[in-house]
Amino acid sequence: MGSITIRNHTIGDGSLTIIAGPCSIENREQLLEIAHSVKESGAAILRGGAFKPRTSPYSFQGLGEEGLQYMKEAGQAAGLLTVTEVMDSSDIDLVASYADILQIGSRNMDNFSLLKKVGQKGHPVMLKRGYMSTIEEFLLAAEYFLKEGDNNVILCERGIRTFEKFTRNTLDLSAVPIIKKMSNLPVIVDPSHGTGRADIVLPMSKAAVAAGADGLMIEVHPNPKKAISDGQQTLDYNAFRELMQEITELHAFLNHRLTAPQAVKFKVL
Amino acid sequence: MGSITIRNHTIGDGSLTIIAGPCSIENREQLLEIAHSVKESGAAILRGGAFKPRTSPYSFQGLGEEGLQYMKEAGQAAGLLTVTEVMDSSDIDLVASYADILQIGSRNMDNFSLLKKVGQKGHPVMLKRGYMSTIEEFLLAAEYFLKEGDNNVILCERGIRTFEKFTRNTLDLSAVPIIKKMSNLPVIVDPSHGTGRADIVLPMSKAAVAAGADGLMIEVHPNPKKAISDGQQTLDYNAFRELMQEITELHAFLNHRLTAPQAVKFKVL
Amino acid sequence: MGSITIRNHTIGDGSLTIIAGPCSIENREQLLEIAHSVKESGAAILRGGAFKPRTSPYSFQGLGEEGLQYMKEAGQAAGLLTVTEVMDSSDIDLVASYADILQIGSRNMDNFSLLKKVGQKGHPVMLKRGYMSTIEEFLLAAEYFLKEGDNNVILCERGIRTFEKFTRNTLDLSAVPIIKKMSNLPVIVDPSHGTGRADIVLPMSKAAVAAGADGLMIEVHPNPKKAISDGQQTLDYNAFRELMQEITELHAFLNHRLTAPQAVKFKVL
Amino acid sequence: MGSITIRNHTIGDGSLTIIAGPCSIENREQLLEIAHSVKESGAAILRGGAFKPRTSPYSFQGLGEEGLQYMKEAGQAAGLLTVTEVMDSSDIDLVASYADILQIGSRNMDNFSLLKKVGQKGHPVMLKRGYMSTIEEFLLAAEYFLKEGDNNVILCERGIRTFEKFTRNTLDLSAVPIIKKMSNLPVIVDPSHGTGRADIVLPMSKAAVAAGADGLMIEVHPNPKKAISDGQQTLDYNAFRELMQEITELHAFLNHRLTAPQAVKFKVL
Repeated sequence: MGSITIRNHTIGDGSLTIIAGPCSIENREQLLEIAHSVKESGAAILRGGAFKPRTSPYSFQGLGEEGLQYMKEAGQAAGLLTVTEVMDSSDIDLVASYADILQIGSRNMDNFSLLKKVGQKGHPVMLKRGYMSTIEEFLLAAEYFLKEGDNNVILCERGIRTFEKFTRNTLDLSAVPIIKKMSNLPVIVDPSHGTGRADIVLPMSKAAVAAGADGLMIEVHPNPKKAISDGQQTLDYNAFRELMQEITELHAFLNHRLTAPQAVKFKVL
Repeated sequence: MGSITIRNHTIGDGSLTIIAGPCSIENREQLLEIAHSVKESGAAILRGGAFKPRTSPYSFQGLGEEGLQYMKEAGQAAGLLTVTEVMDSSDIDLVASYADILQIGSRNMDNFSLLKKVGQKGHPVMLKRGYMSTIEEFLLAAEYFLKEGDNNVILCERGIRTFEKFTRNTLDLSAVPIIKKMSNLPVIVDPSHGTGRADIVLPMSKAAVAAGADGLMIEVHPNPKKAISDGQQTLDYNAFRELMQEITELHAFLNHRLTAPQAVKFKVL
Repeated sequence: MGSITIRNHTIGDGSLTIIAGPCSIENREQLLEIAHSVKESGAAILRGGAFKPRTSPYSFQGLGEEGLQYMKEAGQAAGLLTVTEVMDSSDIDLVASYADILQIGSRNMDNFSLLKKVGQKGHPVMLKRGYMSTIEEFLLAAEYFLKEGDNNVILCERGIRTFEKFTRNTLDLSAVPIIKKMSNLPVIVDPSHGTGRADIVLPMSKAAVAAGADGLMIEVHPNPKKAISDGQQTLDYNAFRELMQEITELHAFLNHRLTAPQAVKFKVL
Repeated sequence: MGSITIRNHTIGDGSLTIIAGPCSIENREQLLEIAHSVKESGAAILRGGAFKPRTSPYSFQGLGEEGLQYMKEAGQAAGLLTVTEVMDSSDIDLVASYADILQIGSRNMDNFSLLKKVGQKGHPVMLKRGYMSTIEEFLLAAEYFLKEGDNNVILCERGIRTFEKFTRNTLDLSAVPIIKKMSNLPVIVDPSHGTGRADIVLPMSKAAVAAGADGLMIEVHPNPKKAISDGQQTLDYNAFRELMQEITELHAFLNHRLTAPQAVKFKVL
């Protein structure tokens, strides 16, 4: 069936899994507030970066272990699973002691040494597609976990680098149905990084669900304009709540259609 | 409102316009059959190439005026509008005498001389995005028509060239909501060229509708494996009929939601 | 041998052909001055746009036939061949009546209808690589001329579109030796468009010559900062003269080495 | 001046530094033979992979520490410095105990955690450009070393990912003069990975030297067809020796010209 169960939550069983939270963990109170807000709107997993891969060494690099502690506390307080990035093989044990799911970021999809060691750890993992990687390379990177016997792998399409300038990346939704045909791993779509624009996160979320995604990862912050990083692609609480309403209804409609007796199966030529 | 009316059909008024037909016009009987079939499934416009832009000069170049005659006849017989490509400024009058809508192909989006002369003709036109053009360049190319006073312009997103190899192009659905914010021209999505794969035309069609597209352009052929060109991305009659059912229901759901009282408007940050 | 002779000048015989001139033809006196200056520095062919393909319809579109007259006069006065772009099949006879070589611009490399008609005219032609075209597509586009019996075809590598932002395009010098292996057509490199930066035109010109190019096309203007178009990639007279000195010496060195007895042939594996 | 001295060898002082060797270290005898051969032809640094980043986990992953031992022995026997890739922060001390220069591979240019820790080690390092990184990102990645006080940094242009299919990557030689203007770090060019084709390594090497590169990195193997990895882009001993002859003469010519009294400096506009 290709579903993954982490504690009480199952991903990839036909339900829609929503991951939400800030780009960077900024402080304890804010993360607690965000966690409760996104939980109320229907999210199942809290995201937030403690170790941040930044293009410039002079940019904010994250709170480190302090951030991990805030994340674990906020997840437990709000009843959410947690996911956060691990950037270095020497941090795997540390991050896994706080987070339910280890994220491998887009910039590390080709960091095969990290992939191997995370696979050996056997912790649930979400692998983001490299922004410069083909779908084939994405699936082969996932094999690094599977080869080590770690099957709790979630894939995340987050946009690829092209010449287009109106978006930060080009969200490649074709990857969703293609991966569904070639693998039984759940596929999450990240329209926040995939577009870099808060104003089109809603339509691209709907498109992702319509394309068959098993879930979405959305950046949420109480005041996106003041976020330490990625504010231009981040939703505030209201926008996120409204998105959740639309997405939930759309998913229910699509799901109902799939299981209704009149549903016809599309024949591949 | 940004809608365009050609004879009895309006594009961009909230309805969904489906353009369907073969990549190349192959012969009279086949085109008549296709026209009746796609009409029955719900298409409004018949597509088909008479002048074909081919990478190699040794590939089939299209039936030319003979193809245009078949197209006009088939459109009238089935009650469909027609769209076909014009590749040369000296053919504008000829093509416009047969087809309701002139198509500017992806390879000619930068052919500014052709754009100007088509704009001067004042005939309805569908402009396909260049496969390596930014959205900004796409909108500026459309300005070539608008500057000449021709406002009957439909835009068509059909995928861009990237490094990805599992698809022929990368369908850039982000272009749909972005163009909707920057222009009032209707936007059609072509998942056939945008993916190059018949097996994902359905999910990408649903994604396009969910992203807000005003319509779809789908390649249909009675026997895709025997089509002269682009068979690998072409649906047969059954697959197209099933796609139309799903798409129509999805569009009705989304439209109803938009107009229902509980609908909340998404706030741009 | 793969060389082409136009009047008294041969391209592709081991010599180095330099094409120089302004992006746009601006006025008669200036073009005459430029022609004499670049001739004195060693150029053989005068370039200059009379019909300009511009992304925006509101940008300067060129002087048209008036510009062609200036170009013909300037070429004759300075003893230079001339090359200029033809953008529309209905202008082929007009442009060919003024210019020695018809240029097909990068944006029209896929304008197969134009290629065919230029090929039928049989006039010497320089085909620029599409900024979104593979080398294979470039060579197939050249076949459109060859198929019509027109063998006086010069190819021009001018950079391709990538994600890089410090240059306007990415100059693909690998295309030079690859085309040399697959075709006997002369290959010119355009480092002005290929980089979009006057400050690296010299090193990239040297690199092009070292890679085996049969010539260069360089934008030159008396006052680049005041040029109507493309000033940021244009050299002034002094910079061009100095470039010519360096390039000429480098080419003589490479040529001598090639023909000297100790020269060893590189064996392809 | 921007030069780096490692033991007896200086890189970036106007001389040309040649790095050569196999893609993967295969066995002790072969590496010794290669080391002597490339030394005789004029190389200064021996390359060879002991830890190999492979797209598929099922491909050969390198000999590991055994390979490092062979490399150290071969470098000492032939009088060559050595460079090899480190893929994991936990291997830094190990690799640094064997190799003179640590290589950060293209796939790890964004592995900021690795960059930081290598910078803290203070060992000489060669950073390869990410195959989908801009020049700006490349320079910012180098800042990760400089910020830690490690100034012994060599940059290596090795091609970027584009849509072109006749080459493995598109070698972006424009990066050489641009980096020279923005940084004082030495720049090496890798035409083997940059093209993926042994048959154009020579012309692209000449182009790189003409563009101003401080050196080249070339894959050499006694029998490229039998190499474990990357054979199609690898030169045999004869081809490498002939390349060295041509390159050395070209560099001497260019260097002489630069220092000769008649040399004129190119003025940036």
